[in-house]
Amino acid sequence: MADGDVTPQDGKRQRGGRSQRREARLSSDQGTHRPYIVRGIPTYDILSDESLTAIEATADRILAEIGIELRDDAEAMRLYKRAGASVSDVSADVWRIRFEPGMLREILRTAPAEFTQYARNPANSVRIGGKNVVFAPSYGSPFVMDLDRGRRYGTIEDFRNFIKLSQSSPWLHHSGGTVCEPTDVPVNKRHLDMVYSHIRYSDRAFLGSITAPERAADSVEMARILFGADFTDRHCVVMGNFNTTSPLVLDGVTTAGIRAYAAANQGSIHLPFLLGGAVAPLTIAGMVAQGLAESMASCALTQLVRPGSPAILASFFSSMSLRSGSPTFGTPEPAIGSLAMGQLARRLNLPLRCAGNFSTSKLPDGQAMQQSMMSMMSAVQGGANYVLHSAGFLDGLLSMSYEKLVMDTDMCGALHAYLDGMAVNEDTLAFDALAELGPGQHLFSTQHTLRHYETAYWDSALDDNQPWETWDEQGGIDYAQRANTRWKKLLAEYEAPPLDPATDEALLDFMARRKAEMTDMWY
Amino acid sequence: MADGDVTPQDGKRQRGGRSQRREARLSSDQGTHRPYIVRGIPTYDILSDESLTAIEATADRILAEIGIELRDDAEAMRLYKRAGASVSDVSADVWRIRFEPGMLREILRTAPAEFTQYARNPANSVRIGGKNVVFAPSYGSPFVMDLDRGRRYGTIEDFRNFIKLSQSSPWLHHSGGTVCEPTDVPVNKRHLDMVYSHIRYSDRAFLGSITAPERAADSVEMARILFGADFTDRHCVVMGNFNTTSPLVLDGVTTAGIRAYAAANQGSIHLPFLLGGAVAPLTIAGMVAQGLAESMASCALTQLVRPGSPAILASFFSSMSLRSGSPTFGTPEPAIGSLAMGQLARRLNLPLRCAGNFSTSKLPDGQAMQQSMMSMMSAVQGGANYVLHSAGFLDGLLSMSYEKLVMDTDMCGALHAYLDGMAVNEDTLAFDALAELGPGQHLFSTQHTLRHYETAYWDSALDDNQPWETWDEQGGIDYAQRANTRWKKLLAEYEAPPLDPATDEALLDFMARRKAEMTDMWY
Repeated sequence: MADGDVTPQDGKRQRGGRSQRREARLSSDQGTHRPYIVRGIPTYDILSDESLTAIEATADRILAEIGIELRDDAEAMRLYKRAGASVSDVSADVWRIRFEPGMLREILRTAPAEFTQYARNPANSVRIGGKNVVFAPSYGSPFVMDLDRGRRYGTIEDFRNFIKLSQSSPWLHHSGGTVCEPTDVPVNKRHLDMVYSHIRYSDRAFLGSITAPERAADSVEMARILFGADFTDRHCVVMGNFNTTSPLVLDGVTTAGIRAYAAANQGSIHLPFLLGGAVAPLTIAGMVAQGLAESMASCALTQLVRPGSPAILASFFSSMSLRSGSPTFGTPEPAIGSLAMGQLARRLNLPLRCAGNFSTSKLPDGQAMQQSMMSMMSAVQGGANYVLHSAGFLDGLLSMSYEKLVMDTDMCGALHAYLDGMAVNEDTLAFDALAELGPGQHLFSTQHTLRHYETAYWDSALDDNQPWETWDEQGGIDYAQRANTRWKKLLAEYEAPPLDPATDEALLDFMARRKAEMTDMWY
Repeated sequence: MADGDVTPQDGKRQRGGRSQRREARLSSDQGTHRPYIVRGIPTYDILSDESLTAIEATADRILAEIGIELRDDAEAMRLYKRAGASVSDVSADVWRIRFEPGMLREILRTAPAEFTQYARNPANSVRIGGKNVVFAPSYGSPFVMDLDRGRRYGTIEDFRNFIKLSQSSPWLHHSGGTVCEPTDVPVNKRHLDMVYSHIRYSDRAFLGSITAPERAADSVEMARILFGADFTDRHCVVMGNFNTTSPLVLDGVTTAGIRAYAAANQGSIHLPFLLGGAVAPLTIAGMVAQGLAESMASCALTQLVRPGSPAILASFFSSMSLRSGSPTFGTPEPAIGSLAMGQLARRLNLPLRCAGNFSTSKLPDGQAMQQSMMSMMSAVQGGANYVLHSAGFLDGLLSMSYEKLVMDTDMCGALHAYLDGMAVNEDTLAFDALAELGPGQHLFSTQHTLRHYETAYWDSALDDNQPWETWDEQGGIDYAQRANTRWKKLLAEYEAPPLDPATDEALLDFMARRKAEMTDMWY
């Protein structure tokens, strides 16, 4: 097939009866899917302007006085140098790059405050930035878990299952990226299977590969086959999620990948993964300053490659168990850090990725959900625009859990209602509802109740709200077991969204050709 | 013993070696107890002034046009009438009371914005209102639960156990009130055993009885024995938690109790218990307006009895399962309502009680902790000053759970760190920590890390943060089972705080005399 045959517009035409039936089922069983959330409540701003300015000044000082170490990417070095950064040689392929205060902010002015990532089903295109909130499943676990089989290395079958479960949920908006590592596929080939699986089993937007420059290029190429080269050059259709090498290092594999995405006008996320006390200071203010410095330096590279290409500021903060030295997630200090990062991103006028459903628990239990809720609330309250890791993580990010995935997507549903906030108008203020029957009379039968009965509240698909006696008679099933039943039901009922056969064939041909060029690598 | 022999000052002298050892143990095992939290982060204000004004106007309209129905308390009727309310007879002992807009706000001007409730150990006295946050255990469940014995009716032994467990936690500040119903004690006598148990097994502040006017009077009398009559007349040493009879009714038993506490200069909480669609509109804005109207009318009675006596505005919002009609707790709509109620309370300049650790789950599982965290975060973010129900509830408020209690107190510990917020200063910004070793170097050994290593993060006593392999080798214990082990350990290690023997004897004498005057009532 030729480039350009499949565009979002074509996608619209492809939606047939099956797709409509699926939408209807989502609607009755779980709620009505929205492509993304437009927040109806303000952000939670916890820091004063004075504190924010002090953090920004520290970030500027880090960038000017310590600088960033850039490794193994002479092209990136030249781009930073040409933009006015001071470059000194550390060794043959390692440079220290220092930025005058304000320089990166100036460079970042060309980055869009909001942009659209297109999905092959145009109804699912997401708007990233501003008041918009996009939930994507978790990313990067080598292990997977479920209650029946326990913990094991992830496979491509698990990978596909997680995409299917995510696609089944009306409360996720984006298919994510490495939903788990498919360890049964060679390292150098798995990006092809991953990108293909997102395209084949989901009709939502997705992330491409970043683990090597040629894998980033393959990801963009597959997006071109799907969306057409012209459309892809003009619109964001795939994104890469890039980690800095904290503290204060940019690795050449990463910067080459960033350059590949930016050159193709595709999106990139710039994440300092900060474990306090290990690769960042233990104190949150310092962690936030460092994170801001690293993410700005990484984001700026996109604008040096192609001004106007989409870049997402990002932060990841962890605390540490002071007894064992283990990293901890879903704890209060990182939650506070996420709220602060939200304020800093808005002052930079850049979209933000932060926090997610984090937990160190090894089971989908009370610890897991308590930590997850604290972390996720910080993401949505802090104004995160793209929330990677919205569903599935257990085991300190090392495992993707089938049960936790459906628990978390249900929580994402609750957060839709939370972010909608409170409508205040004559109807919702409901004076007439109280006046109709007066003091002491139940409101079951008032006109107001009847009018709002079907839509008033978010309704969980997983919580048990029955009286104890009913719950007990039905076997006294706990949350984890209900989640186990639910993911199996959702997988059994899953129907793949239609994909144009010619596109499918072109993608498979591309993959086959690329794989034929490679020798299997397993580490 | 004579009134006045034991005052908070005496309490200080009583703290001996045992007490100090106990404090030390709390400190090393669980964290350092503070008498209450002074919040270091701002409140989360989600509504515009315009929306708040619209809610207040609706509350005023409810009070002026529909009014409150007052039942069986002619004295309260006369107090409202004398203050300028319009009173019309509904029947012999039932009146409709209407208030001109602004009238209740004017009456409430004499209520303190902040006040101290004294504890018998003065180090544990709590400051309620303003930036202060006080956590108390849950209140009112007829049933209790643990993983070994399941669900059963509560007994006085359970009651004492919950007080002991609460007292053991550094993260609660207040002993609460009816921590469970001690159903093995006659209904008309149990208030004596409950108040005595709080005094005997805790040295923190507590709530008295409200179920009948004479029980309220007994509660205040026992407080007088403990603190002295003069001290009690001048200071708040006991509080009552009063529910309105929604929608828009004040019952005479309640108003007589409120009058008894206010006349004695003791504190009272004024709670509309609003189940949306049943006793309040389904829409949150209407529920908040009704709650504000009811709580203001109830609070105002205290100022008509004794201007300056402490009164706490309160709200309780629930949603409803639209599938089953069951009430639901810990869901997003009530969380949003709590944030709005916080803003309204600050505009009234009154202390606020709202939200808590709510869940409909029947087990201490992921559902329970997810719902609890959403609800508790709304309480602390919204600026609640007194958070009743901070620990223990399961089963839609019907059961107090031993495991959930220790899970929730641990969460309260996390919320201490959360409310402390982020210190931003030269030390926490940690420029030197990054500069010391530079890019690419771990910060384990920096001076900054060594200086902050023991205090940087809140450390859970219940979470498992170990690597999966270690956790697995140790038996793969889940959160609920760890909580089961923990409450047994805490009960076994519990030591009662010292109580002056003469005071103890006086309390026991009073109880014996009062019980001798009564015939057992069982319902």
